[in-house]
Amino acid sequence: MNTVEVREPKYRMVADHLTALLEELGEGVPIPTERELAGRFAVSRVTVRQAVQELLVAGRLRRQGRGTVVAGPKVVQRLVLGSYTEGLAAQGRRPGRRLVSAERVPATAELAAELGIAEGDEVIVLERVLLADGNPVGLEDTRMPAARFPRLLAEFDPETSLYAYVRATGVEYETATERIETVLAAPREAMLLETNPAAPMLLLNRLSYDPEGRPIERVRSLYRGDRFSFVTTLRPEVPPVS
Amino acid sequence: MNTVEVREPKYRMVADHLTALLEELGEGVPIPTERELAGRFAVSRVTVRQAVQELLVAGRLRRQGRGTVVAGPKVVQRLVLGSYTEGLAAQGRRPGRRLVSAERVPATAELAAELGIAEGDEVIVLERVLLADGNPVGLEDTRMPAARFPRLLAEFDPETSLYAYVRATGVEYETATERIETVLAAPREAMLLETNPAAPMLLLNRLSYDPEGRPIERVRSLYRGDRFSFVTTLRPEVPPVS
Repeated sequence: MNTVEVREPKYRMVADHLTALLEELGEGVPIPTERELAGRFAVSRVTVRQAVQELLVAGRLRRQGRGTVVAGPKVVQRLVLGSYTEGLAAQGRRPGRRLVSAERVPATAELAAELGIAEGDEVIVLERVLLADGNPVGLEDTRMPAARFPRLLAEFDPETSLYAYVRATGVEYETATERIETVLAAPREAMLLETNPAAPMLLLNRLSYDPEGRPIERVRSLYRGDRFSFVTTLRPEVPPVS
Repeated sequence: MNTVEVREPKYRMVADHLTALLEELGEGVPIPTERELAGRFAVSRVTVRQAVQELLVAGRLRRQGRGTVVAGPKVVQRLVLGSYTEGLAAQGRRPGRRLVSAERVPATAELAAELGIAEGDEVIVLERVLLADGNPVGLEDTRMPAARFPRLLAEFDPETSLYAYVRATGVEYETATERIETVLAAPREAMLLETNPAAPMLLLNRLSYDPEGRPIERVRSLYRGDRFSFVTTLRPEVPPVS
């Protein structure tokens, strides 16, 4: 078999050495200065800076004050139709939410088709920052038919679980389709999530349905790639009926 | 409820206008020049360039020769335990694979634990570029116990489905755990995938098991974020047995 060979640049090797060092240091411990690392690995400070930048984006390091410390592990969320609160709490993390905006707007043709309502019908739009242990990790935009949840804006505490609120109104979640992509944060999103505009994010677009197949909500969630990961269990495709 | 307001920079508005324009133009059509777009939207050429860069990263535009054209839709792959070949073919795309390297190496302690073998036992490592319609979209690194697949390197055609080969040896796939993250491409990966080192990628780490619960393979797949997305169907969590 023919094979291709491609060489790694020097800063990648420094990043690998540095990764090994992080495991010795442990979470929250400051890393040595750029000068010390350059000496230790016999490379230039520019190369050290590139390696540190890569590990910051990967979420292995984080800035703290003027220094750089070893980051904790990413949040590992199960990919299920359920509550962010419960998912996070199951990992021993403290979930939280901060309201960005809550309003009623007329549905565009596209959104109306997705939610099974008429164009121009009122839709509730809730935008919230998702927190883990007090740190912003995600930005969630939820759109729901206002006619179905008429008291939501008056009753619902946006710092609590929307999933729990919806179920308390008697609506059951049966299934959802979810599309997973990666995007770079837009400047407004980066600002709300306290990260850089060029930071890679996980984008999840979800449509949830009740047992009658009626759409409940359309959710666009953006998660910081340096803080969040998802896990799921896969099964083989059910073979088509012949 | 208190709300937060954050303003969008000018190039984001240009990107939105440009997105609407792309839908009129259609796939493969060149976009107007930077100068024309700057005139049309009454902004500087620098602002146009930022907007175009954003749409390139998002996979809405692609470079073609010296020009920039409207990109086709992303590949939408179902998140299942199955064949890349079948998944792509089901969407009317032409799947392909290009071998990067194939070798036998001794298992590290970590890999041995994951594959249920002893440290130092031989492991087959296959690295392949995944193609869609002839374009590189992913990079797949598969590690399997050599003792279980002794004739793999001699028999297996690396341009075909490994999933099909494994099943033909009598091994069945029962389940897999998959972890989904986003990362920036390392320089070597970017070169193999014909993209930029700063390009955001979807990283999938999979461990597949047979019906007896024995690990079959460990797969690390990297997909170009501008070319690939995943979809899945979610169900509510099964409540724990009380």
